[in-house]
Amino acid sequence: MNETLFGTVGIAGVGLIGGSLAKDIRTFGMARRLVGWNRTAAHAERALELGLVDELAPTLESLAEQSDLLVLAMPVDVLVRTLPGLLETVRPSQIVIDVGSSKRALAESVAGHSHRGRFVACHPMAGTERSGPDAALDGLFRGRFTLIIDPEASDPDALERVRTLWEGVGAVLATMSAEAHDRTAALLSHMPHVLAYALARTIKEAERNQALNARFAGGGLASMTRIAHSPITMWEPIFRQNKGPLLEAVDAFAEHLAAFRKAIADDDAEALAELMR
Amino acid sequence: MNETLFGTVGIAGVGLIGGSLAKDIRTFGMARRLVGWNRTAAHAERALELGLVDELAPTLESLAEQSDLLVLAMPVDVLVRTLPGLLETVRPSQIVIDVGSSKRALAESVAGHSHRGRFVACHPMAGTERSGPDAALDGLFRGRFTLIIDPEASDPDALERVRTLWEGVGAVLATMSAEAHDRTAALLSHMPHVLAYALARTIKEAERNQALNARFAGGGLASMTRIAHSPITMWEPIFRQNKGPLLEAVDAFAEHLAAFRKAIADDDAEALAELMR
Repeated sequence: MNETLFGTVGIAGVGLIGGSLAKDIRTFGMARRLVGWNRTAAHAERALELGLVDELAPTLESLAEQSDLLVLAMPVDVLVRTLPGLLETVRPSQIVIDVGSSKRALAESVAGHSHRGRFVACHPMAGTERSGPDAALDGLFRGRFTLIIDPEASDPDALERVRTLWEGVGAVLATMSAEAHDRTAALLSHMPHVLAYALARTIKEAERNQALNARFAGGGLASMTRIAHSPITMWEPIFRQNKGPLLEAVDAFAEHLAAFRKAIADDDAEALAELMR
Repeated sequence: MNETLFGTVGIAGVGLIGGSLAKDIRTFGMARRLVGWNRTAAHAERALELGLVDELAPTLESLAEQSDLLVLAMPVDVLVRTLPGLLETVRPSQIVIDVGSSKRALAESVAGHSHRGRFVACHPMAGTERSGPDAALDGLFRGRFTLIIDPEASDPDALERVRTLWEGVGAVLATMSAEAHDRTAALLSHMPHVLAYALARTIKEAERNQALNARFAGGGLASMTRIAHSPITMWEPIFRQNKGPLLEAVDAFAEHLAAFRKAIADDDAEALAELMR
């Protein structure tokens, strides 16, 4: 990069995603200054201690005021409540992005907003089940897709610089509508998370009923329940905000599961092998 | 080990589990000679090429005849058909073990057999989604449980040497009945595999209907569908052989999934958070 892409980048939510993006922005020299803020003050302090950011802002408003690029890495219910107000005071030179997992409600919350163009909705398809500043990773976005949602609703200059940001951290870009995004995310991410949580609960209950000693589990169960360790405060609002597409995805899965159940109950080897193919 | 545990170890099925056990047996010097056999001749040749075994036996009968320890690492339907006949000709100095994932049908197939005592039913709770000789790994069993099923049905000397074998490759031993095993395996392994296959199929179908581009998936989906890459020829017989406990486990999961579905449909944040806890 010949010149610094952004002066000050503000990270609201210095956890797994916000913290990882801060790390990469620093690594690739894309900001002159990184400022952090977090609703949980201890997380903000920890992010500073870890060097994810150079300094902390006392409030979200203060962070927004001083940021050339403001990254909103917050639970999706907080995002929807917060974004419209933040856009009120945004200056024409500023850019706001989010990194949330549900987009239609967010898009609706700022549809027709006079400063809508300064906002670019982003969803990096990367993460782990860990959370908080200590979960931040270098290179988390490298080779992973970042979806840019409703790009035509953003000002061309804002869109261009946000593309440069994501490409700079190694992400592969794709664009889609909020509706297509929410359907995609429901199938590829939200519904699988529901399955992982439901599976973890099934195992826990069997253990509680003393029908099972789960310490005998091999790697398969660990793999299937890994994402059930994801933070509830992040996922519960996603499930509710993306209710329609999520219920459709859960129902689609339940139908396939029922087909497996039937093939097993019917001793139908042929049907079973076909379902597994 | 001060002296070699076994003279000749025969591995019937030189894939992921049989091949990995062969590797460890060699590493820890527990056999003077390793002989392999595989129903698919190309796999046998590959195992020899990889050095998993020292030589190949032309038939399973020939392998059985020359083995002090015979390891049956075959699909569970083949096991049930094969074990009773193999036990007919077993000598009092020989030991036969299996490493299959379903035990009640196998136990019933040799219940009351005059040579039952020479057989020790084993289930190492380790593996990956890969298969065949090239999938064999060093140290696959280290720190993982190996379940010994119905130990009282085996001769004490056979049981003792088989315990020494598994402890020698680093496994942690536990014993249980065939019924308890099948319930445990259904919950911890078989049902999660069904979920993975059903999830993979749900995603494939959404792609086929052009409702989805699955290349946008992050790590969560990969984690949830990894074990759906496991070989059908191995898993389809497990699902059918362990039908009763598996259907119970699938139904238990389906109930929990339905509870999640209801909490989402009802916009019930409290119930949802409670289910995720």
